[in-house]
Amino acid sequence: MLSFTGSRLDRADHVRADPERLSGYMNWKARLLALDGLMPSLDDHGRLAFGTLADAPENAELCFLGLDDGKACFAAVPPRGDAAPRMANPQLWSLMATLQPDDLALYGGARSLIDWHARHRFCAACGGETVLAKGGWQRDCTQCGASHFPRTDPVTIMLVEHEGRLMLGRGLGWPEGRFSALAGFVEPGESIEEAVAREVLEESGVQVRDVTYVASQPWPFPSQLMIGCHSHADSEELTIDETEMAEIDWYTREEVEAALAGNGRFVAPPPHAIAHHLMQWWIDR
Amino acid sequence: MLSFTGSRLDRADHVRADPERLSGYMNWKARLLALDGLMPSLDDHGRLAFGTLADAPENAELCFLGLDDGKACFAAVPPRGDAAPRMANPQLWSLMATLQPDDLALYGGARSLIDWHARHRFCAACGGETVLAKGGWQRDCTQCGASHFPRTDPVTIMLVEHEGRLMLGRGLGWPEGRFSALAGFVEPGESIEEAVAREVLEESGVQVRDVTYVASQPWPFPSQLMIGCHSHADSEELTIDETEMAEIDWYTREEVEAALAGNGRFVAPPPHAIAHHLMQWWIDR
Repeated sequence: MLSFTGSRLDRADHVRADPERLSGYMNWKARLLALDGLMPSLDDHGRLAFGTLADAPENAELCFLGLDDGKACFAAVPPRGDAAPRMANPQLWSLMATLQPDDLALYGGARSLIDWHARHRFCAACGGETVLAKGGWQRDCTQCGASHFPRTDPVTIMLVEHEGRLMLGRGLGWPEGRFSALAGFVEPGESIEEAVAREVLEESGVQVRDVTYVASQPWPFPSQLMIGCHSHADSEELTIDETEMAEIDWYTREEVEAALAGNGRFVAPPPHAIAHHLMQWWIDR
Repeated sequence: MLSFTGSRLDRADHVRADPERLSGYMNWKARLLALDGLMPSLDDHGRLAFGTLADAPENAELCFLGLDDGKACFAAVPPRGDAAPRMANPQLWSLMATLQPDDLALYGGARSLIDWHARHRFCAACGGETVLAKGGWQRDCTQCGASHFPRTDPVTIMLVEHEGRLMLGRGLGWPEGRFSALAGFVEPGESIEEAVAREVLEESGVQVRDVTYVASQPWPFPSQLMIGCHSHADSEELTIDETEMAEIDWYTREEVEAALAGNGRFVAPPPHAIAHHLMQWWIDR
């Protein structure tokens, strides 16, 4: 299963949209996800820790995450977000490696949502203050009335194949030896397939064809939807965009397989990343 | 080909990111997309009309759309957007029906982008004023320095099949007899496949399995990425969400085929919509 998928929560859209029903769920049985800023807290069994709504700071905005076996789950919005989204740090990576898959999915979804609230306290249309609405799935402007919705940013990430070899790249600033699939945000006015072709051409100079969809995964740093694809290249000749990529190279099936097993001539992406899944899918095919 | 795809522009990311190069392109040869608010203007040949940068209102913010056969194309941001995004109106629909596919794609991408700028003149993090940056592919806050990027909102739209029949629905407020595929935004913390299953369950009460990707299309009202999928239902028993849907029903292959041909017992979505393409794909399979 892909990381950050498989949450056990029922998002219960009918509860969000109904203020009376929602407040009915905000009782002593409701669970509050225990967080330290955006970091998760674990209980003695290594599971995500929860408290009650009484643990939330006074006047904290509360997001309704959904129903967990009938009990309502909430997360509190941190008082103020950073201007830039906070990425995962090494401490979080090692914590995440110990989480059960359904806990990881629950945490990832909650993190994306509360981080969005923390960084969207004002109205992009008029600059006025906004307040949480619809159980945390909306913010409304107190000044002009505009409604704003959590972001989910689609990103294409792609295998590019040519005569049995795979194109992988090392981004600027990545550790020496670390290679992964190329990736880039889908822009307004293009399909997934067009975004794949544009990104590969921009970063590597290579034209691709026959783009197919493989799998998708949410990525909560801060709120990407990773869309994994496969494509064929007509040539191996590279023209590397040096403003984005440090290196790009072609790897054989044996080299990719060795890297995934942890003993290759390059370092593969970690199992949490969809790139790891895509590379494994390519090997298993 | 899917509508709103197939733009002839080279987005030329290397130009956006390089202020000197970008201003080198802002010369007398540059083309300015002629717009009336967000509406396109056509020339005598029914093609999108263009002017020069001299036609832009003084102090208008200019978005670099890309290179068209080597010539830089720009679009001016309207002075102030509405609080809510403007949807397509009947006048625009009939205009769009006459546009060449590559003009439609160019217009759609430009519309999404300038509408986003017009509705994001302030910083969501601090409420400060923002200014256009990176040739129109970013806005920067003049107060806290936060960068903001155009939105692209992934939406799943799905065929649901059971024993040779297709689930189609009529949304609240739609004209009598108009049916289409169910659809909904992908939320933070879910994959495409999970979003499909959740939306179908929410709106129809039906559980689906074996979700597969079919095709994608940008939809510039205001900035959706439509992700078309197919899925199988285990049962036909409907529990309709009456806050979203007026009717949901199951249709045979013959009924869907007749509707696409314009003489069915329901009205199919227009060819510009990916739902039309999905239904045709289902018939042709």
